[in-house]
Amino acid sequence: MVRVAIVGATGYAGAELVRILSGHPEAEITVLTSRQFAGVRFAEVYPAFAGQVDLACEAYSAERVCDRCDVVFLALPHQLPMSFVPDILAREKKVIDLSADFRFNDAAIYESTYQAHTAKELLAEAVYGLSEVYTDQIKNATLIGNPGCYPTSVLLPLVPLLQKGLLDPASLVADSKSGVSGAGRSLALASHYCEVNESFKPYKVAVHRHNPEMDAILSREAQKAVSITFVPHLVPMTRGMLTTIYATPGVDLADKDVSDCYTAAYSQRPFVRLCANGRLPDTLHVRGTNYCDIGFKFDQRNNRLILVAAIDNLVKGAAGQAVQNMNIMIGCDETAGLLNVPYPL
Amino acid sequence: MVRVAIVGATGYAGAELVRILSGHPEAEITVLTSRQFAGVRFAEVYPAFAGQVDLACEAYSAERVCDRCDVVFLALPHQLPMSFVPDILAREKKVIDLSADFRFNDAAIYESTYQAHTAKELLAEAVYGLSEVYTDQIKNATLIGNPGCYPTSVLLPLVPLLQKGLLDPASLVADSKSGVSGAGRSLALASHYCEVNESFKPYKVAVHRHNPEMDAILSREAQKAVSITFVPHLVPMTRGMLTTIYATPGVDLADKDVSDCYTAAYSQRPFVRLCANGRLPDTLHVRGTNYCDIGFKFDQRNNRLILVAAIDNLVKGAAGQAVQNMNIMIGCDETAGLLNVPYPL
Amino acid sequence: MVRVAIVGATGYAGAELVRILSGHPEAEITVLTSRQFAGVRFAEVYPAFAGQVDLACEAYSAERVCDRCDVVFLALPHQLPMSFVPDILAREKKVIDLSADFRFNDAAIYESTYQAHTAKELLAEAVYGLSEVYTDQIKNATLIGNPGCYPTSVLLPLVPLLQKGLLDPASLVADSKSGVSGAGRSLALASHYCEVNESFKPYKVAVHRHNPEMDAILSREAQKAVSITFVPHLVPMTRGMLTTIYATPGVDLADKDVSDCYTAAYSQRPFVRLCANGRLPDTLHVRGTNYCDIGFKFDQRNNRLILVAAIDNLVKGAAGQAVQNMNIMIGCDETAGLLNVPYPL
Amino acid sequence: MVRVAIVGATGYAGAELVRILSGHPEAEITVLTSRQFAGVRFAEVYPAFAGQVDLACEAYSAERVCDRCDVVFLALPHQLPMSFVPDILAREKKVIDLSADFRFNDAAIYESTYQAHTAKELLAEAVYGLSEVYTDQIKNATLIGNPGCYPTSVLLPLVPLLQKGLLDPASLVADSKSGVSGAGRSLALASHYCEVNESFKPYKVAVHRHNPEMDAILSREAQKAVSITFVPHLVPMTRGMLTTIYATPGVDLADKDVSDCYTAAYSQRPFVRLCANGRLPDTLHVRGTNYCDIGFKFDQRNNRLILVAAIDNLVKGAAGQAVQNMNIMIGCDETAGLLNVPYPL
Repeated sequence: MVRVAIVGATGYAGAELVRILSGHPEAEITVLTSRQFAGVRFAEVYPAFAGQVDLACEAYSAERVCDRCDVVFLALPHQLPMSFVPDILAREKKVIDLSADFRFNDAAIYESTYQAHTAKELLAEAVYGLSEVYTDQIKNATLIGNPGCYPTSVLLPLVPLLQKGLLDPASLVADSKSGVSGAGRSLALASHYCEVNESFKPYKVAVHRHNPEMDAILSREAQKAVSITFVPHLVPMTRGMLTTIYATPGVDLADKDVSDCYTAAYSQRPFVRLCANGRLPDTLHVRGTNYCDIGFKFDQRNNRLILVAAIDNLVKGAAGQAVQNMNIMIGCDETAGLLNVPYPL
Repeated sequence: MVRVAIVGATGYAGAELVRILSGHPEAEITVLTSRQFAGVRFAEVYPAFAGQVDLACEAYSAERVCDRCDVVFLALPHQLPMSFVPDILAREKKVIDLSADFRFNDAAIYESTYQAHTAKELLAEAVYGLSEVYTDQIKNATLIGNPGCYPTSVLLPLVPLLQKGLLDPASLVADSKSGVSGAGRSLALASHYCEVNESFKPYKVAVHRHNPEMDAILSREAQKAVSITFVPHLVPMTRGMLTTIYATPGVDLADKDVSDCYTAAYSQRPFVRLCANGRLPDTLHVRGTNYCDIGFKFDQRNNRLILVAAIDNLVKGAAGQAVQNMNIMIGCDETAGLLNVPYPL
Repeated sequence: MVRVAIVGATGYAGAELVRILSGHPEAEITVLTSRQFAGVRFAEVYPAFAGQVDLACEAYSAERVCDRCDVVFLALPHQLPMSFVPDILAREKKVIDLSADFRFNDAAIYESTYQAHTAKELLAEAVYGLSEVYTDQIKNATLIGNPGCYPTSVLLPLVPLLQKGLLDPASLVADSKSGVSGAGRSLALASHYCEVNESFKPYKVAVHRHNPEMDAILSREAQKAVSITFVPHLVPMTRGMLTTIYATPGVDLADKDVSDCYTAAYSQRPFVRLCANGRLPDTLHVRGTNYCDIGFKFDQRNNRLILVAAIDNLVKGAAGQAVQNMNIMIGCDETAGLLNVPYPL
Repeated sequence: MVRVAIVGATGYAGAELVRILSGHPEAEITVLTSRQFAGVRFAEVYPAFAGQVDLACEAYSAERVCDRCDVVFLALPHQLPMSFVPDILAREKKVIDLSADFRFNDAAIYESTYQAHTAKELLAEAVYGLSEVYTDQIKNATLIGNPGCYPTSVLLPLVPLLQKGLLDPASLVADSKSGVSGAGRSLALASHYCEVNESFKPYKVAVHRHNPEMDAILSREAQKAVSITFVPHLVPMTRGMLTTIYATPGVDLADKDVSDCYTAAYSQRPFVRLCANGRLPDTLHVRGTNYCDIGFKFDQRNNRLILVAAIDNLVKGAAGQAVQNMNIMIGCDETAGLLNVPYPL
């Protein structure tokens, strides 16, 4: 059994880590930390866990955390992880960081998007945890920068096509829609029930922080500069993210070419499901799971390819992919703890 | 007082006509028809109206309807109106048809999208009821083809820019999101509560029937062939529609050019609101109203213009615009019956 | 035209007052105050009102407010109104207070439920603004303590039956369910979207502050001590409140007796609708309106009467009833500004 | 491994059985039947299951079903099971029926509530599958009448108190609230999205078919005739049921007496959780789980005890309890397949 610590356990991503890791056959949660709820039993903060999780939250201390675990999950706002990680790595623990702090190899991009980086020396060894794309690097990593939810939903459908040079990189538009849990548990008018319910709206149009993250990985995989237009929207539902991507083929392209490309990339991967029979993804079908469902259609009249990907923003978009990365790192089955049967509704 | 009949009063668009016209200072509802509920009081079908609407539904008969009204609103599935309208016009009543039957001047487009048209001879005189664009024609019309909800949300932001030649017509993508009421009151698994709630999904990708309707009007106003990529999605909420449009400028274009173009087109029109201060539309802000809120942003990095429009699909997208058209036709204030103060939430 | 000020205009009840009074034919809003948004245009705080409400919020000052209005609506947390009201009354303005500060004639009950009362001398003249029950007193009032939302939904169905002595006062149970807007716009985990959505729960069971308010009025109208068991619950929806009341008849009682009692009490009153044909209330049917829908059924097997009342918590439960009270006070039609046609959905 | 058949697999309760049994360590699903979807792969009917459930639906035939399984779950509308069960039992298979057909020992009560019973001879041996109360009988049963969702939420909190004679049986009122999935997948206006969303309402007040079921078990356990007043309501959410019960103590009763009674009844049972620290149940905390959370408060002023129970109507209220019963019948751990960690939201 690998012993795991969840730092920042009482935010939504942290609680989702608790859920998944509690049922993980190869992992044991040994430490939960929470600044706000230090000293409080986790099941009092989230009564859903009563009878299943019998740990109290504690304040973070590198020493106390690292003494009792092998892997540290950080579910904290960006800027905190970069101050914690050097110490944890020095204690020879593996780190999976769900913030943006270790997602960029290029500190300049991070700094122009977030703020000054205080642990730049680690960026070279940090591995971007897009499980299906960087599996080999993840196997040997000690520090994972776990992808953002929006980038996960954009990159999984785009990367295989860009790797093969099938799309015109100048044509890319990603129109994303996210459930409200993506905004986290911190109080904000934007997450206040009556402001969100019966409301649909875009936000941070073309200026969202996940945009540079997408561009960096798209460019790396396309082996040329790629800049995608990205617009996120907020959907009145708790969980789920769906991204619709518009792209112009860069070569002559038929349905079968796209199918074949996806099959080559993903048919051996347990968590990417290609929608069959012209079906398209629906967030309800991936709710609570680590799946990324991908479908596509051609708009023949306009020679435009339309890709659709759906994930649960808290699972494949955060905690689930983090656990998938841990599984790859520790060498157990990639699906361990992640194959709960989905809800039909 | 103009006497109005609502044919198909118990569907959602019909009931919304009842709501708006009940409070209209210049109109009096004299006839409500419903095949399913003939003989039943309207307020039994929709108890919300108890104490306010004291009419019973009746079966449709051209004679009985036309004897008692000046204007006929048809809120029926397509194919029925084309069989009713010749008779109504022969009785010298004005018709506002909310179906697709009289939206196309070109019968061939209608027939390739829907089915054979049995009243083609009327298509030349039918006016497309996009109130802000075809005001002058509407004034003198006797037959209005009221626009679809999706086309309304796509055309109002695009037409002024295309009229001025500011956009590359080959670049247009419209990603639309609609509340569930757009699917109407007919029972269907796709509108079954548990299948929609906590779900977000695309449907009829690049094959929706509203796509040719958009293309026809965009082409007419751009004075060249325009074909837009259109993808509708379903949002778990009752009312509201938001469309995000991606377009590449056809000329050098700055924020101010777009603002000026919209101001020229709409500043004198009561129901199009341009979002100020970089704010973007939210369906909640137009809920229950006839407003179309329009905002925009440039994605400078990719030289792409992003337009966002929000409407209430049942009001500006159906019944409200129909009443606005009636107002224009009968020469009363364009806003009569349509200026109820919006709900803050 | 009566000039009105809304103090605390940017909370949900305040914004609802703005909505209703903006469309009121006999009233003109002259002042909006907001501590948090002083200096900001109201339509920036609530963009729904763009183009319709052209006032900026200002800080509260008795002098500046009273100089420009005839009636002051206070939509503030309790405890603030009692410090403002003496000064406003001294300036000979009428006051309608939506907080609890002037709902009790007996200061002791107020003080045991809330906190020390600093304007006790006004309690004797304050009128409890349950419009249908205290119409005559409201006509001549200068200070209205506007009822709470829960009490409104409990008292309207119970008062006529208790006045006639038809129920056993020891048998009363009120099980209430409220939409989330009742909790207001202040940020709180209990109103955070993901904590409320897909959740149903009771809160403040048998200890809610509205319980003593109900008891006081029930006792007054029954002319004996009445103490009701009251349990509120939170429903995942924005607007609406439904109360189910269980009562044992105190006398032999048939359906017709209950109907007759309600008819006698309410048939001349525009905002109480008795559900006909065995139909029972649904919050959707009163959404956005000032109606209180009342229905009932006997559980014959257990000799228990079940009463059901539905209101919109923000309208009949707050701002709408406040305006109804103003209408009664200023002698205009009781329904002025309040008869917008309801939404069918 | 026990081989199980799910008859009626494509309704909501059937699909929930598929979900739970797919992940069950001791069971293997060998047959899925569906009249409507015979010949269709289950994962096409419910795409959420793609990659996890690889069976096609087939038409029902006693022979073909029984040849391949040991236990038959029937998730069908009432009246069908009574025609299937004799044949299945004759083939020596165990049956767990989720309909009402085998919930009553007294055919007269069934017949006055539903319709004529065609397999009355089996009622004596059928065991009411309220797992925590009839564990011993379930162990040896071959035919289980699985409880209704409402009765489960009413009986679990009431039975221990009635068994001990702590409550006045004439005082009982159950006010229940259910998510929409309880109405099943069959199309109906009452489950049409726009009719349910933003709506809260009671239905079948004091005449619901689950009322006699409750009375029968309450009477059996109280050892005297008990008749409870029961009012169900519909909540705009997919899953979850919460029941608030009002009861007058029949003896002198303190908090500790109630706690002790529940502790004695349930502390060794894995799926009933008593809410600690004055917390009360919330449907969100049991979503997707087999838990029944129970809490209580006294209304001291009125000497009334308020009990609150929350379940997931599709799990503990249907499929989960059915699997729990199977576990008890086949002698494996009662929690097998049912201890997935709950979602925090």
